[in-house]
Amino acid sequence: MSKQPLTPKFGSKVHLKDYDPDYCEDLDKKTAKKEEDQLEKRLAALQEMLYAQNKSALLVVFQAMDAGGKDGAIKKVFDSVNPQGVHVTGFKVPTPEELAHDFLWRVHMATPGRGYIGIFNRSHYEDVLVVRVNELVPREVWERRYDDINAFEKLLTDNGVTILKFYLHISKDEQKQRFQERLDNPDKHWKFSMGDLSVRARWDDYMSAYEDALTLCNTAYAPWHIVPANRKWYRDLVVTRTIVHAMEQMGLAYPEPKEDLSGVVIPD
Amino acid sequence: MSKQPLTPKFGSKVHLKDYDPDYCEDLDKKTAKKEEDQLEKRLAALQEMLYAQNKSALLVVFQAMDAGGKDGAIKKVFDSVNPQGVHVTGFKVPTPEELAHDFLWRVHMATPGRGYIGIFNRSHYEDVLVVRVNELVPREVWERRYDDINAFEKLLTDNGVTILKFYLHISKDEQKQRFQERLDNPDKHWKFSMGDLSVRARWDDYMSAYEDALTLCNTAYAPWHIVPANRKWYRDLVVTRTIVHAMEQMGLAYPEPKEDLSGVVIPD
Repeated sequence: MSKQPLTPKFGSKVHLKDYDPDYCEDLDKKTAKKEEDQLEKRLAALQEMLYAQNKSALLVVFQAMDAGGKDGAIKKVFDSVNPQGVHVTGFKVPTPEELAHDFLWRVHMATPGRGYIGIFNRSHYEDVLVVRVNELVPREVWERRYDDINAFEKLLTDNGVTILKFYLHISKDEQKQRFQERLDNPDKHWKFSMGDLSVRARWDDYMSAYEDALTLCNTAYAPWHIVPANRKWYRDLVVTRTIVHAMEQMGLAYPEPKEDLSGVVIPD
Repeated sequence: MSKQPLTPKFGSKVHLKDYDPDYCEDLDKKTAKKEEDQLEKRLAALQEMLYAQNKSALLVVFQAMDAGGKDGAIKKVFDSVNPQGVHVTGFKVPTPEELAHDFLWRVHMATPGRGYIGIFNRSHYEDVLVVRVNELVPREVWERRYDDINAFEKLLTDNGVTILKFYLHISKDEQKQRFQERLDNPDKHWKFSMGDLSVRARWDDYMSAYEDALTLCNTAYAPWHIVPANRKWYRDLVVTRTIVHAMEQMGLAYPEPKEDLSGVVIPD
């Protein structure tokens, strides 16, 4: 297997057929799990420093087709992280109040404050994905959103938020298998709805919409990562690696005390 | 060791000196850890059902003196739980906007929606603890808050929120040791501030304020649990046990699908 890029080249058009969702660097599951465990420990340590330092923040965005593994990746990758420092927001169909505002309003409110990791399960990208495919707004409205998104993500990064965006890339066949598993297991029925099939029927339209989002909003300050996601263990490994690597660059450290603590005696 | 009650008798005055912070049922750490691991797995399974069922919610409130173990318990107990279904809120000194509202305003906003576990690291109880000890409002104001709190917690439980309140009970000596550890370890300096010593100096006043909160807001629908917390492993075990036990009573189950899924065929 030749090495598959994780982040597309900035400025060049993304063609998802060039990205193999089965790609796994010739790694095997066992080796991957070992690396995953070590990385998760490191992630937990980095998160504690992020929280203690209280200077910067991390925003992790997950996008994928249904059954692409957003929930699974969030659960696995942040397994060992203190829930106190993490805030997951799932973006669903907007409420009337949300729709009464611009599309970034509800998203902005959910961005992580200093010291926190914010995780988006779906995001503002739905406003150029499902909204575009279903023509919920006219073309001229969704077309200008790519610039809006880039400006918004610039604002965040300028203010100390490191942004990592993951597109979990599965094949149409893999989705079929995962849907079938949900149908076959009564404990998973709640994860399936008939509407999922109408979305699946528009697969190619979604791929085009994703390609545009991955092309037009792939910036040096907020790059996309196209994660081969047919294999869950490889998907989780790539996501964890990317997060740990990014956090290692954030200059995290335990802060110096604000007061001089030398010679402090604690009375009985 | 005779058995120490976890929840005080409703309606009778709590005297914290009757509660031994070292109490551990003659359990040893190893046995406790084994039980803890099993309970945490069960907790993770129950949380998934809570989320899937999307009918009720759980609110877990942690109160303690500084270094009492609120952060530690949250980290350990919710170790294996999917961060997506959990939302931890830490209540700090109120902002001007928060102070412009009644004391329950910011708390109400942070309550968990259906399907979620909400965790409060400190809570509305600070408004009858630190606020009372430091006389930040007149007595007649904080005195009526016990009733306000009971009414508020009633509202929540009537609307499907199960409330569990934990007071992590440490001794004054144990606090001294934990403060000393923070001073001795530069990576823990950020957890210590000189202000912690002024609070410690008012230990007895805090104990009186806690006793009133534990007495006046100990209701059948939102009971207090006084957790012996000098031993961290016992503290975590008691909290996990209590949460698992409460969730087992919530009638959690994976929901039936809203649509008839029999005979559904997934197209290629």
